Amino acid sequence: MTRDLTHYSGGAHRAGMSGRFGDVHNPATGEVTSRVPLADAGEVAAIVDVAAAAQPAWAATNPQRRGRILLRFVDLVNEHVDELAALLSAEHGKTLADAKGDIARGIEVVEFSAGAAPHLLKGEFSDNVGTGIDVHSLRQPLGVVAGITPFNFPAMIPLWKAGPALAAGNAFVLKPSERDPSVPLRLAELFTEAGLPDGVFSVVNGDKVAVDALLDDPRVEAVGFVGSTPIAQSIYAHAAANGKRAQCFGGAKNHMVILPDADLDMAVDALIGAGYGSAGERCMAISVAVPVGERTADALVARLKERIDGLRVGEATAPDVDFGPVISAAAKERIEAAIATGIDEGAELVADGRGRTVEGFHGGFWVGPTLFDRVRPEMALYREEVFGPVLSVVRAADYEEALRLPSENEFGNGVAIFTRDGDAARDFSSRVQVGMVGVNVPIPVPIAYYTFGGWKASGFGDLNQHGADAFRFYTKTKTVTTRWPSGIRAGASFVMPEGS
Amino acid sequence: MTRDLTHYSGGAHRAGMSGRFGDVHNPATGEVTSRVPLADAGEVAAIVDVAAAAQPAWAATNPQRRGRILLRFVDLVNEHVDELAALLSAEHGKTLADAKGDIARGIEVVEFSAGAAPHLLKGEFSDNVGTGIDVHSLRQPLGVVAGITPFNFPAMIPLWKAGPALAAGNAFVLKPSERDPSVPLRLAELFTEAGLPDGVFSVVNGDKVAVDALLDDPRVEAVGFVGSTPIAQSIYAHAAANGKRAQCFGGAKNHMVILPDADLDMAVDALIGAGYGSAGERCMAISVAVPVGERTADALVARLKERIDGLRVGEATAPDVDFGPVISAAAKERIEAAIATGIDEGAELVADGRGRTVEGFHGGFWVGPTLFDRVRPEMALYREEVFGPVLSVVRAADYEEALRLPSENEFGNGVAIFTRDGDAARDFSSRVQVGMVGVNVPIPVPIAYYTFGGWKASGFGDLNQHGADAFRFYTKTKTVTTRWPSGIRAGASFVMPEGS
Amino acid sequence: MTRDLTHYSGGAHRAGMSGRFGDVHNPATGEVTSRVPLADAGEVAAIVDVAAAAQPAWAATNPQRRGRILLRFVDLVNEHVDELAALLSAEHGKTLADAKGDIARGIEVVEFSAGAAPHLLKGEFSDNVGTGIDVHSLRQPLGVVAGITPFNFPAMIPLWKAGPALAAGNAFVLKPSERDPSVPLRLAELFTEAGLPDGVFSVVNGDKVAVDALLDDPRVEAVGFVGSTPIAQSIYAHAAANGKRAQCFGGAKNHMVILPDADLDMAVDALIGAGYGSAGERCMAISVAVPVGERTADALVARLKERIDGLRVGEATAPDVDFGPVISAAAKERIEAAIATGIDEGAELVADGRGRTVEGFHGGFWVGPTLFDRVRPEMALYREEVFGPVLSVVRAADYEEALRLPSENEFGNGVAIFTRDGDAARDFSSRVQVGMVGVNVPIPVPIAYYTFGGWKASGFGDLNQHGADAFRFYTKTKTVTTRWPSGIRAGASFVMPEGS
Amino acid sequence: MTRDLTHYSGGAHRAGMSGRFGDVHNPATGEVTSRVPLADAGEVAAIVDVAAAAQPAWAATNPQRRGRILLRFVDLVNEHVDELAALLSAEHGKTLADAKGDIARGIEVVEFSAGAAPHLLKGEFSDNVGTGIDVHSLRQPLGVVAGITPFNFPAMIPLWKAGPALAAGNAFVLKPSERDPSVPLRLAELFTEAGLPDGVFSVVNGDKVAVDALLDDPRVEAVGFVGSTPIAQSIYAHAAANGKRAQCFGGAKNHMVILPDADLDMAVDALIGAGYGSAGERCMAISVAVPVGERTADALVARLKERIDGLRVGEATAPDVDFGPVISAAAKERIEAAIATGIDEGAELVADGRGRTVEGFHGGFWVGPTLFDRVRPEMALYREEVFGPVLSVVRAADYEEALRLPSENEFGNGVAIFTRDGDAARDFSSRVQVGMVGVNVPIPVPIAYYTFGGWKASGFGDLNQHGADAFRFYTKTKTVTTRWPSGIRAGASFVMPEGS
Repeated sequence: MTRDLTHYSGGAHRAGMSGRFGDVHNPATGEVTSRVPLADAGEVAAIVDVAAAAQPAWAATNPQRRGRILLRFVDLVNEHVDELAALLSAEHGKTLADAKGDIARGIEVVEFSAGAAPHLLKGEFSDNVGTGIDVHSLRQPLGVVAGITPFNFPAMIPLWKAGPALAAGNAFVLKPSERDPSVPLRLAELFTEAGLPDGVFSVVNGDKVAVDALLDDPRVEAVGFVGSTPIAQSIYAHAAANGKRAQCFGGAKNHMVILPDADLDMAVDALIGAGYGSAGERCMAISVAVPVGERTADALVARLKERIDGLRVGEATAPDVDFGPVISAAAKERIEAAIATGIDEGAELVADGRGRTVEGFHGGFWVGPTLFDRVRPEMALYREEVFGPVLSVVRAADYEEALRLPSENEFGNGVAIFTRDGDAARDFSSRVQVGMVGVNVPIPVPIAYYTFGGWKASGFGDLNQHGADAFRFYTKTKTVTTRWPSGIRAGASFVMPEGS
Repeated sequence: MTRDLTHYSGGAHRAGMSGRFGDVHNPATGEVTSRVPLADAGEVAAIVDVAAAAQPAWAATNPQRRGRILLRFVDLVNEHVDELAALLSAEHGKTLADAKGDIARGIEVVEFSAGAAPHLLKGEFSDNVGTGIDVHSLRQPLGVVAGITPFNFPAMIPLWKAGPALAAGNAFVLKPSERDPSVPLRLAELFTEAGLPDGVFSVVNGDKVAVDALLDDPRVEAVGFVGSTPIAQSIYAHAAANGKRAQCFGGAKNHMVILPDADLDMAVDALIGAGYGSAGERCMAISVAVPVGERTADALVARLKERIDGLRVGEATAPDVDFGPVISAAAKERIEAAIATGIDEGAELVADGRGRTVEGFHGGFWVGPTLFDRVRPEMALYREEVFGPVLSVVRAADYEEALRLPSENEFGNGVAIFTRDGDAARDFSSRVQVGMVGVNVPIPVPIAYYTFGGWKASGFGDLNQHGADAFRFYTKTKTVTTRWPSGIRAGASFVMPEGS
Repeated sequence: MTRDLTHYSGGAHRAGMSGRFGDVHNPATGEVTSRVPLADAGEVAAIVDVAAAAQPAWAATNPQRRGRILLRFVDLVNEHVDELAALLSAEHGKTLADAKGDIARGIEVVEFSAGAAPHLLKGEFSDNVGTGIDVHSLRQPLGVVAGITPFNFPAMIPLWKAGPALAAGNAFVLKPSERDPSVPLRLAELFTEAGLPDGVFSVVNGDKVAVDALLDDPRVEAVGFVGSTPIAQSIYAHAAANGKRAQCFGGAKNHMVILPDADLDMAVDALIGAGYGSAGERCMAISVAVPVGERTADALVARLKERIDGLRVGEATAPDVDFGPVISAAAKERIEAAIATGIDEGAELVADGRGRTVEGFHGGFWVGPTLFDRVRPEMALYREEVFGPVLSVVRAADYEEALRLPSENEFGNGVAIFTRDGDAARDFSSRVQVGMVGVNVPIPVPIAYYTFGGWKASGFGDLNQHGADAFRFYTKTKTVTTRWPSGIRAGASFVMPEGS
Repeated sequence: MTRDLTHYSGGAHRAGMSGRFGDVHNPATGEVTSRVPLADAGEVAAIVDVAAAAQPAWAATNPQRRGRILLRFVDLVNEHVDELAALLSAEHGKTLADAKGDIARGIEVVEFSAGAAPHLLKGEFSDNVGTGIDVHSLRQPLGVVAGITPFNFPAMIPLWKAGPALAAGNAFVLKPSERDPSVPLRLAELFTEAGLPDGVFSVVNGDKVAVDALLDDPRVEAVGFVGSTPIAQSIYAHAAANGKRAQCFGGAKNHMVILPDADLDMAVDALIGAGYGSAGERCMAISVAVPVGERTADALVARLKERIDGLRVGEATAPDVDFGPVISAAAKERIEAAIATGIDEGAELVADGRGRTVEGFHGGFWVGPTLFDRVRPEMALYREEVFGPVLSVVRAADYEEALRLPSENEFGNGVAIFTRDGDAARDFSSRVQVGMVGVNVPIPVPIAYYTFGGWKASGFGDLNQHGADAFRFYTKTKTVTTRWPSGIRAGASFVMPEGS
């Protein structure tokens, strides 16, 4: 028997009223473990009502006090990390270690946002810009803002958005993925337990109906999204058509360039982790390896093959598992189809993850680690995001070709280069047309106090997630120009006003 | 016989090839003085080609060198200010003094952008964020960016956009208003004369065809717009649908609140200037005066009436003229219709500017200064932007009502409060839902090193014009995470490589 | 029998070895309650040894991890606030409420420093400042730094210095006042309990011998001091003679200007609190009231007299006490002598605090609230810091005279103006030659994220305490300019190095 | 017959009145070319009087206007660059190309300071830090500030100090080196010609008498110095003893580390330029080369020897001259004595510059390029600053030894590493105890928008020269905390005050 999940509003769980539900699975078994309510427009409006009512008092709370509540939340998440990780793995399938990383990277942003808000929310002040004229600026919160977040990081991405939004004085409405909504709901409880005023953080579960209701609600001032590129672009356009600000992050096709002078052990380690970790279901996963020169390529593929043979795929809580199932039966099908396409297009299949089974988990959505060599840029396998444990090797003849591949790719999320050479690293970092670059770092997710955002089809909007940018996104500037008429100073009214 | 104007691309004038033209008038006489070519999509594409080809070398020029060219441009504009002001007045109709102000406020932004760019383009650097891991960020130019600018400030708004865009290393394509394109074309010549490389600043003249072509061109990375709210919103949505960043500024209904303790002489002076200057054709013009209390209102209206009677309307170059004609016959018609509506709605017409004539200029688009008293918030006269020399007095019973009026208005561009009271000024500045606030300053346009942007229907996007914000808008962030394998330091390769 | 206090080094208490001790009193009883060891140069050197050994590992810990330890310390202080306040009051004499404020303002700075450090420690990065040349900067900790702090805020001032110093990666050696060293020692224990590595925070108790030893130790890179002006200046000079950086804050003579339009109830409340709170032993206490105009002055003095009559002086823990004893018998003597001088100079004594007794506490160092009217700038009473519950009224004829008084005073720590008039407040804030200004705020101590520092004889050095300035003071800038020779990128060495 | 030079004050030249003069030589001929007046304390006081009187109006001029005057000065310097370079070479002896570089690096800082001042002088603003409480900060100029500058960059260093000081609203008094005062005097004329108000920039010529008078004048709020370490430290201490802020930059012993993988051609070129350019009379000259490994050392020394043999020493204006004479007969003697000491200590003299003559310039102060190999850290030749064309090779066995040498050296101004290896460069940059680091850049003087300052005995003070730091050094922070009593807003005084 499955549980029915809820929404969360006004500091409490709220049962779904629309009558529509979605199934939540355990991807390791394929079983339905709960039903998530899918909100209709009225339910969304009711939740936004509550958020809008709660926001002014939160905004009027000074940033140090807001920060203390957020830090108490961080402490609570740390206390409950095992429980949260188990909950996360049970709906997403990633290993417990990965689940803890998901949570840890999320609360780092909450922690940074809490601590830096008093500084990052400062305006500017200039006196005497003209005779007797002063100017100053304020950064004020937007009001109610919404986040629409993906299945692959059910803790991290919601917290990347909520952390700075809340620290800046907004009320935040989260529409998490309907695949794994339990962690977001649990985070909502912990926010309440930490002392966040009721209504300031809400969870509305749902599908496109709920998303559209948020996008069409005039009280929702800004929308943050992470997901696939077509949806990212459509939400960006929809939000803009309604005059809202939006930052929407989409898909990726992240390359890792390996120069002949690279530390090859390091590069192979990095590729295995970045290519297959979390079953490749990360927007910063590496899906394309670009060795430079045939000799580098041959050595790389040989070592990758060896390592892939030893990878352990299994249920999240089993010991020594390298990665778990993919999120859904549909995902498994889509990934296996992409592998078939790669074969048809003439790529060399070095390791085939199709048909993978895990003993005791026959209904699970398993895909094994897959490696293609001699993939070429014109193949669909190269051009399209697979979002699974499939790594393609594209051999580059020289450095310039290796630089061109990620630069000319439709996506521009992350990229890495492995080399010991200062010049190559610097030239690559400077010229590559990708927003996040790793030098001997395969998954260059910027640390909490820097800012996350891809280029080209990987990111829409002009301000990034977390870091200082997020405080600009979640506040609006007011500029005040002041000049005073000379008054009491000149002796005009040395009569005390009544009553004082 | 009328002149045919041109486009400007690659450092030279380019004749229109589409066969379509628009008429440019002298609004003081009503005569057609020239024809402006209206570009088709092919002409736009050709100009963007040139811009895209020129941009990389400009981006590779360091910001101090770029700044020197922009400062030479500032010097040239100053040298030619009389000529430019005459050209501007002849097509726009504003007085020569206003035209010079238009130019001066524009080049202040170029000057600031040139000087502050080396600092404002800096990224950040942190070492040892993890063991042996460094992170740094870069701000890189976008590439080709476009500005679509209105008739009412043909020098200022183009320069507000071009200044920071160019200083940040972009190529800039300007689509100015087809009503007064001559000043933009002259500015283009001066950019070339100042040493700006060919292709880095272009002017494409046109109408919606050209605008759409810019919005649909994938090489145009960002669009800045100023104009009416419906167009602003539509361009914002169109740009977003194509994945671009956009900042679009729209209409306004700027209030000036006059508290009982205000310096009334100062307030009346301010209202006359801010309400009727440039015939009210400014997005920061005051169109609503809100005296608090009947006694304040009576005194205010009486003094305004007196001052209005003395205002001189006439041709831009005539001595002692207070303001000139409106921009077009259609504008005159629209404004006069709004006045008629106000009368129909029951507002008290204190001064009527309809039917105004100026001797010797019978074909000119004249509207005299118009004042309404006892306007109420539900009237169309209050709700809609008139964009002419029409001032409405809305009487407020108390401070809270006066604060509510601009806060609840659809627009949120500028607002002013006149008072001597520190508390009232501070409370108003903090709470009013408007982006730019003046305390005893009627037109609170932020100085060049602060940033210009309205709220609500007056501005779309999350970053403002000029100031530090503009550098964020016109650049994209790249974040680099670096870790090096230990190499020569550990003695690994004490063999000198070949050739060195 | 009295306890012997200790030093604190390497995570543990260390008994004094010099054989020299100072007496610590309970100022409410006059009794000696403990003896504090006075370190000799050798003991100081040993403590600096330990600090210097501990610092590199602390510096290598990333700022988020350092911050977490500091936040745990904040939590521990909050948990022990009652115990700490009692300890503080027992040695200092201030009321428990004041003691808690002392602690609270201290940990706010630790909290801010912990949270903002990752951002405030960032360097800058610019690429292509010349062809192929990048520049970046780092902010690195200094190493061992020392704080020499006064008796009047035994929790707050040590934490104002230690908070940012530790957050920035330094080891901190505290030489607290020998009058009330128990709270600093307890804070040291809590730092250890919070997980701060041994040796990173040390307490060395002592007198001038210890101070000189710190100033002469070449490993102490920077010194922060708060105390009287002559000592501040002498430490500033001594530190500089040894090539160290120093920020030294001295005495004060803080004025409060009351304009005729001020809210007089608010002003009187403010003066009573700011003049007599903590027995006037605050560097931000108001010691001079400047009413403008005779009518304002008469009303002010009358109301002050009334309120002074109701003030309760007594032991810190007694209910409803307004303020406690002064710190020492010597202080009581000095303050009473200053009162006598004022009388001799011809100031009007309105309330006389000399000879005050408190039942049951006959040995205590009591001075009652004292008010002088018609004090003149040439009197010693006006010119010299009294540091006791003595308030002087200097009557100003007009605004300009009132502005001149604090501006021309030797000191420039804090100043306040009470008015409703925006113009007066703005003009005063802009022109007054004092570092911290309150507008209707009597004790304008800047909040933790702004920065504390007086002007003229009240502060020596170019960077202030806490806020962003403190991070500049406690770090040094390193600037790196980089250009790489073209190498592997150009195909130079497509041979893999040995071993990789 | 020699000319008598002057002081410069109030916009005009002022003859020396003390009766004391110093000789100014042409170092290429040894002839006395003019006499420079040496001011007494009265003359200094008179010049400070004029500066103090001029400063308030300059401070009240807004930063954009101040910037325009400074940019006009930059234009004038560019117009007169040939004349200025000739003047500079004639008194200093450096080549015309070097003299132009000296001027160019100076005006870059003026240019940056002018352009960035409006932004860098901004304070901060936070509203509602407590209920109804706002805080903001201002950066106000100090008043009169002084610069005491060395002979070796008679244009650059004065402008590095004056640029930001003036841009920030201070009056600046320059005490240039008495060896080459003509360029500073000419710069003063150009400041006047550019429109700088009289008195805002002054030149007082003199020796220790003038320096002490500046340091003892209470109106001089801050002192910037560049020169030798003993004088730097003494001025730092003297300024501090008088309560002033100071930034004092001293001597150097800059190392260049060459790793085995370095581009050796690049390294040799760099060493020749950085070791012998300007006769080694630069605080950023390389005086110690540290090849790592014997093989690297042998190759390096061989190539250096070859290149040294081809170096041309001669008069500044002769064609193809590599460097000119040293500044004085005393300098020549001191350098030759240092060479003799090196020989006595057992260093291997590879090239000997003693006894160098230049045909036609027999009285000139010539020293040829000198190279020592196998210098050891304990030698005086290594430990002491030579400030001449003398390069010492210290052979390091490995990377760690090479890192230790500059880190443990008394001085910490500049250092360079030559390598292709990202790891080595990063580790070196992070760990070396030197303030300015070059990676394959021999003279890592930070560009104008970064900041110049050495560590250890090379720099005293906590804020550096030029860049953003300079604006902090030349301004003081004022922090204002504001809370308003409720007044007219609450309806308290709906009676209009008299006269309004």
